[in-house]
Amino acid sequence: MGLKSWFQIPKSSGFSLANIPFGIISTSSSSTPRAAVAIGDHCLDLKAFHAQNGFSACSQQVNDVFSQSTLNAFAALGRPAHRAVRKYIQDIFRDDTPHGSILKDNQDAQKTCLLRQDEVRMHMPMQIGDYTDFYAGKNHAFNLGCILRDPKNALQPNYTHLPVGYHGRASSVVVSGTPVIRPNGQVLEDPKAEVKKPVFKPCQRLDIEVELGAFLCKGNQMGQPIPISEAEDSIFGIVLLNDWSARDIQAWEYVPLGPFNAKNFASTVSPWIVLMDALEPFRSEGIKNDTELLPYLQERNPKSVFDIRLQFELIPEGGKPNVVSNTNGKDLLFSFPQMLAHHTIGGCPMNVGDMLGSGTISGTDTGTEGAMIEQTKGGKEAIKLEGGIERKFLQDGDTVVLRGVCGNEEDGLIGFGECRGTIMPAPKLFF
Amino acid sequence: MGLKSWFQIPKSSGFSLANIPFGIISTSSSSTPRAAVAIGDHCLDLKAFHAQNGFSACSQQVNDVFSQSTLNAFAALGRPAHRAVRKYIQDIFRDDTPHGSILKDNQDAQKTCLLRQDEVRMHMPMQIGDYTDFYAGKNHAFNLGCILRDPKNALQPNYTHLPVGYHGRASSVVVSGTPVIRPNGQVLEDPKAEVKKPVFKPCQRLDIEVELGAFLCKGNQMGQPIPISEAEDSIFGIVLLNDWSARDIQAWEYVPLGPFNAKNFASTVSPWIVLMDALEPFRSEGIKNDTELLPYLQERNPKSVFDIRLQFELIPEGGKPNVVSNTNGKDLLFSFPQMLAHHTIGGCPMNVGDMLGSGTISGTDTGTEGAMIEQTKGGKEAIKLEGGIERKFLQDGDTVVLRGVCGNEEDGLIGFGECRGTIMPAPKLFF
Repeated sequence: MGLKSWFQIPKSSGFSLANIPFGIISTSSSSTPRAAVAIGDHCLDLKAFHAQNGFSACSQQVNDVFSQSTLNAFAALGRPAHRAVRKYIQDIFRDDTPHGSILKDNQDAQKTCLLRQDEVRMHMPMQIGDYTDFYAGKNHAFNLGCILRDPKNALQPNYTHLPVGYHGRASSVVVSGTPVIRPNGQVLEDPKAEVKKPVFKPCQRLDIEVELGAFLCKGNQMGQPIPISEAEDSIFGIVLLNDWSARDIQAWEYVPLGPFNAKNFASTVSPWIVLMDALEPFRSEGIKNDTELLPYLQERNPKSVFDIRLQFELIPEGGKPNVVSNTNGKDLLFSFPQMLAHHTIGGCPMNVGDMLGSGTISGTDTGTEGAMIEQTKGGKEAIKLEGGIERKFLQDGDTVVLRGVCGNEEDGLIGFGECRGTIMPAPKLFF
Repeated sequence: MGLKSWFQIPKSSGFSLANIPFGIISTSSSSTPRAAVAIGDHCLDLKAFHAQNGFSACSQQVNDVFSQSTLNAFAALGRPAHRAVRKYIQDIFRDDTPHGSILKDNQDAQKTCLLRQDEVRMHMPMQIGDYTDFYAGKNHAFNLGCILRDPKNALQPNYTHLPVGYHGRASSVVVSGTPVIRPNGQVLEDPKAEVKKPVFKPCQRLDIEVELGAFLCKGNQMGQPIPISEAEDSIFGIVLLNDWSARDIQAWEYVPLGPFNAKNFASTVSPWIVLMDALEPFRSEGIKNDTELLPYLQERNPKSVFDIRLQFELIPEGGKPNVVSNTNGKDLLFSFPQMLAHHTIGGCPMNVGDMLGSGTISGTDTGTEGAMIEQTKGGKEAIKLEGGIERKFLQDGDTVVLRGVCGNEEDGLIGFGECRGTIMPAPKLFF
């Protein structure tokens, strides 16, 4: 049985008392971005709460971390601090709260600090120093390898030995709701032509990628790897990540140094960071790896990924929402701690606020693909939507919503909210 | 004839009155990093100079930009401001300065503001948001393609159509003089073995890459490309860049998403940013591109790269300096404006402080290679150094110094100073 609250939290809400995710909000009456936690259909303005001495009974000193415009300073306090604050906020909202005078029985404080979510604007939760995108969704990597090469050589020889990844573009990471402008770029229309001559046009194969993103709360000095046994201490929390991808631009540009303009026009994250402690009950084993890993990648606890039900919904302009696929956070070959241990094994310095992307998460069955290129078999078979609408890739006006949730209503759902973006037409350029 | 100065500037100095490069310094007596310009063997502390009303006769308001710990705020003022400030500092140091009372005839100001370069510590000149490394050194790309594949397929079909690039790791960019710790990592010792089984060890093929780095002084909104005609306005200045590379780690990890741990353990930049105006007299045509470029990459002025004499020097521990190669900034197929136009054509947002790397700059002759792997033909032929010492790749204790200079002593040399790093042993790790 989940925690009971004196506050009205709809049973179907992903922001139950078992969750308490952190984000950055602003309101029309107070446009300065500041920290909040989501609770049911509301959020608690932590800056206002702190100003009202709301944290006076909390074991953790929070000073001014919640009045800042990102969560970096709060994240930097470390996991014991996050745990103490989350636990305290749960205590504040519990039916049998020992701190009733602070919020439960304090109408003034409720008025000042509790805001309806539909009345706040969400901002990027953290300032990202560097963003790295991995490729640990083995089923996705295999599906893509089959499309680009063949099933026998779908995965490269290194694939099961290390979490393959590449450096992404931090400046292009945006928060849910930000419009996504279709990129223009170089495209090779006839890859089989003897003379390879690209044309310039708007991307015709605009795709999504269902991923999870992990934000770091702790870094390392250059040259000093983070051991895998300590890697989890460096992870602040998890968000949904849609790594929008221009497949036609990617196919032409990506040899030999990897994806570039195909990926750097936008990557969208959900606004509420779900803390690692909230995910603890949902630890799971990932995809089994038959390769014996080198010691620096070996985990003591094989349950190092999370059972998060993920959903990809597509809404054509003026049309109805269609669930295109359902996948799960378990479908990863490597965990975030493994990614972090690998990322730093050569000495690469990480900083608070850095983000790691998991790579696209796909299942093995039809309807569990984390990218349209997989479900359409490389753009050959259309996805059928309500009202006779079909899609191979995204059209202008399409809205994509990713969702993620753990657990059940009985114990309280742990939801990630939405990761949403609408496709805007490519700009018309004149030279 | 160059400008004459009342101040003692050695003729052989790259920091002539024609240069005036900007950097960030601190001193033992004042450890707060702040801005300075290099002049001969000295530098002018711009924070102290400003505090003494040194800029009182300058047409450009500088406010507090020079008391900050990076040059980002100064860069953000834009190219007309950089031009005005550089010209003003040249005026201050000219023999026939119209502002003699400010420094020339002011012993107190000289004592406070003029510091010997060997008494200051240099810091990272800018805070880098994102770092992108291109691959525009065609001779290097060809040489490497011959080593990895064969001369017929050395360059990929996209190579001459667009500046190939990838996102680098901003957090690993360090200033000249920072020790470089040899990375550990996964290496495939026998690439021809049927079963590919990597081992964990310190990198055995540690290499350098001679590059130029461009810092941006202007960004763009997401979705709004920077037209090539305006791209040069976004470039603040140029530094030397050594993109240290772990070739054995790279060979195993880089498919299919590009270099990762092979490049993110350190990249070193020279500390003094040479402004675009200082380089103007050295505009040159780059490597001729026989491919007809798409309009967004076409430049009006074909002289869009710079005649910078580049040198790679290797100093074994306790040994003598050896010039390993001499190359030139002209040996690029694409210019920085072309790189920037391409980088943003799909809408990627750039910010002040972002850095673009040119890619390794190699000539076509022996002794002009910008990386050891080229000169040693893939690690097969040793480079012979003084005292019977040989190197295929770098050993612990080796020091690498890159240098760059434009022009002649008569008109005043435009030097980049040093880009230096010494290799430290890989950390011993226990699991």
